[in-house]
Amino acid sequence: MKNRIFLLSILTIGCSEPKTDSKVAIQEVIVPKKETVIDGLARPWSMAFISEEEVLLSEKDGDLLRIDLRTKEKFPIQGFPTDRMDSLHYRKADYTPGTFPARLEDNIKVTFNAGILEVVLDSDYKDNQRLYISYVSKGPGGSTTKVIRATLQNDSLQNCTPLLVALPYSHGLFHYGGGMTFGPDGKLYVTVGERLFNEDNQPEVPIAQDLADTRGKIYRLNPDGSIPEDNPDFGTDAVPGLYASGIRAAQGITVEPQTGKLWFSEHGTRQGDEINVLKEGANYGWPVITTGKYRGEAYSPEKIVGTVYTNPQWYWLQTVAPTGLTFYTGEEFPSWKNNLIVPGLSRGSLWRIRLEGETIKSMEELFIDDRQRSRKAVQSPEGKLYILTEDMKEPKNGKIIRIRPQ
Amino acid sequence: MKNRIFLLSILTIGCSEPKTDSKVAIQEVIVPKKETVIDGLARPWSMAFISEEEVLLSEKDGDLLRIDLRTKEKFPIQGFPTDRMDSLHYRKADYTPGTFPARLEDNIKVTFNAGILEVVLDSDYKDNQRLYISYVSKGPGGSTTKVIRATLQNDSLQNCTPLLVALPYSHGLFHYGGGMTFGPDGKLYVTVGERLFNEDNQPEVPIAQDLADTRGKIYRLNPDGSIPEDNPDFGTDAVPGLYASGIRAAQGITVEPQTGKLWFSEHGTRQGDEINVLKEGANYGWPVITTGKYRGEAYSPEKIVGTVYTNPQWYWLQTVAPTGLTFYTGEEFPSWKNNLIVPGLSRGSLWRIRLEGETIKSMEELFIDDRQRSRKAVQSPEGKLYILTEDMKEPKNGKIIRIRPQ
Repeated sequence: MKNRIFLLSILTIGCSEPKTDSKVAIQEVIVPKKETVIDGLARPWSMAFISEEEVLLSEKDGDLLRIDLRTKEKFPIQGFPTDRMDSLHYRKADYTPGTFPARLEDNIKVTFNAGILEVVLDSDYKDNQRLYISYVSKGPGGSTTKVIRATLQNDSLQNCTPLLVALPYSHGLFHYGGGMTFGPDGKLYVTVGERLFNEDNQPEVPIAQDLADTRGKIYRLNPDGSIPEDNPDFGTDAVPGLYASGIRAAQGITVEPQTGKLWFSEHGTRQGDEINVLKEGANYGWPVITTGKYRGEAYSPEKIVGTVYTNPQWYWLQTVAPTGLTFYTGEEFPSWKNNLIVPGLSRGSLWRIRLEGETIKSMEELFIDDRQRSRKAVQSPEGKLYILTEDMKEPKNGKIIRIRPQ
Repeated sequence: MKNRIFLLSILTIGCSEPKTDSKVAIQEVIVPKKETVIDGLARPWSMAFISEEEVLLSEKDGDLLRIDLRTKEKFPIQGFPTDRMDSLHYRKADYTPGTFPARLEDNIKVTFNAGILEVVLDSDYKDNQRLYISYVSKGPGGSTTKVIRATLQNDSLQNCTPLLVALPYSHGLFHYGGGMTFGPDGKLYVTVGERLFNEDNQPEVPIAQDLADTRGKIYRLNPDGSIPEDNPDFGTDAVPGLYASGIRAAQGITVEPQTGKLWFSEHGTRQGDEINVLKEGANYGWPVITTGKYRGEAYSPEKIVGTVYTNPQWYWLQTVAPTGLTFYTGEEFPSWKNNLIVPGLSRGSLWRIRLEGETIKSMEELFIDDRQRSRKAVQSPEGKLYILTEDMKEPKNGKIIRIRPQ
């Protein structure tokens, strides 16, 4: 197929007056293609650029790695906290039938959500080598989402300091959240999932609606883990650091460069996958209101009188399982400028969303004939677009894939 | 939002040698907007361009009209066959509850499918004023899909000659099909729906699989209604003119200009909306195989041994109700060149599909924040893109809308 359209008029250059038609207008349909840069990764979850060609990458089922994208060398980072829980070391006996559609192979639950999650660099990383990592911590009674700050020295984590532990530790290896980004205000925003698989197991006040419960919330922290004084006031009983509530399972959170707004993706139950704008103090409704359907068909939570719920900007009618989203600001695809790029686990979809303000104007699903289960879209400092993919049939062959012009 | 990106270098024009950087590359994000050209239409179904500014338009619930797009004048065409059945003249008593989700208002079933369907001009229309119209004909026992050829003289139909009557007349005012186009071979291709709402009412040999039944098929005819000698051979019991079988409810059929291939849209039951490439003699499977779900949940048709079924190129996981599709070959949206444009009734969606060969590479839903129930996309001779829309709350205020650059 011919993908280039050239509208050319002859460029006249000479001693005479410039001609009014002496313009060259080139309009080109730039078609994206995938190029595998790195393979052999144990379900990569996130990636942070140290430089244009060097990244820190978290393998959900493996290690924190430093990777040289040119030489393809991988350097495992030493000194990861020993309380880390991953999905691989669990026995079939730990599995409660009916709680999660895991594939159980040789006592390994490969689809569970535990492991290393997001890695984010400090804005002064070059000077202080600080980084922020969210991961699943094991403790008395189960596991939970944890955020630490550390310093990277000689491929080893030093001075690991916990910033957030979403207590209590509880059972069920899913919906940890763990999405993180720095806002334009220099604060660290963290998503924590509500850790339930079936709504029938909700307490009387649902977890994500209970301001005294750490789970199902979005947090805003100072880089040292202290609570910003200008955080919204949720009352004295609320857990510290709260910024928004009513969250089910949000993995992706990112800053819109043009506006400084934060956007986040959220997983629904049956349908109900969403794209949201983060608003201070907002309640996103889960599980009281949802754009999807409950797993427990008889589940019918009471609306809480006087509560204002914030609607998503978008919800899909199909299951997408949207993950680590990013805004595209590169030059390689000029028509994608400032579009939101959203990867999805389900069917391996990759979406390009054109916005005007907070309104979604159009959505394109890319690579329909070459879907790959995608966890994260990341842009390099120079604006190259990458996605992290995994294949559940080959869970040790996840990839860094560059999306480049054909 | 800033939608234009200019990558300009200074154009140097003078007596010296041309500079190597003396190029102007303009890369612009062209954003589509809608402009209502004509309103007050009774559910427009199709449109054929007599010239760049003059069209023949079929109103499903109204008239065949000649419309001047500049002056906005509408001229009803006289002499339409009196056997025409529309959706408006049916009494509540004719409605079998549970057979169709019609809204019954004052004894009017506004969502039924009967009426005037496609209008297509002869390739020599300027010389012979011939046109082809599909519509719903009433007769003993109900209604059916009918195609006539006629001559247009002084805004009046003359010499109406039936080319195809999908006998028998039967009950149920839905799934007539009625999509028509001329192929690059000069033959007229016609879609006829299978005229059933619930699969539980299928005969032992399902309608669309029964080659002796006219319904649920695609036909290929000479312009005079005779059967081309090179039509596929379906055996002596098959109805004349058959080109493909296994069709449920196909409204849109169009030629891909680059390849001469025909593409058609098809409505599923619950999900199962499809895009197909028309292949000679193909069986598209309905109702034996489907990408959607049956209305009758217990319905389980037997596969017919030895039958080869042709898969769609695409099926949606949501309900789209895709209608009159077209390929875009205009200049206003260079990045849409040769893309397939597919309107949908459900939620009023409009899709842009990029193909490579018969493979769908990406799909964009346009106008997400401004959905309008869309029946047809049509391109003018000069390449302007129009859509025909309707609003079920104002069924007499359908529109011709031009999609133009913002």
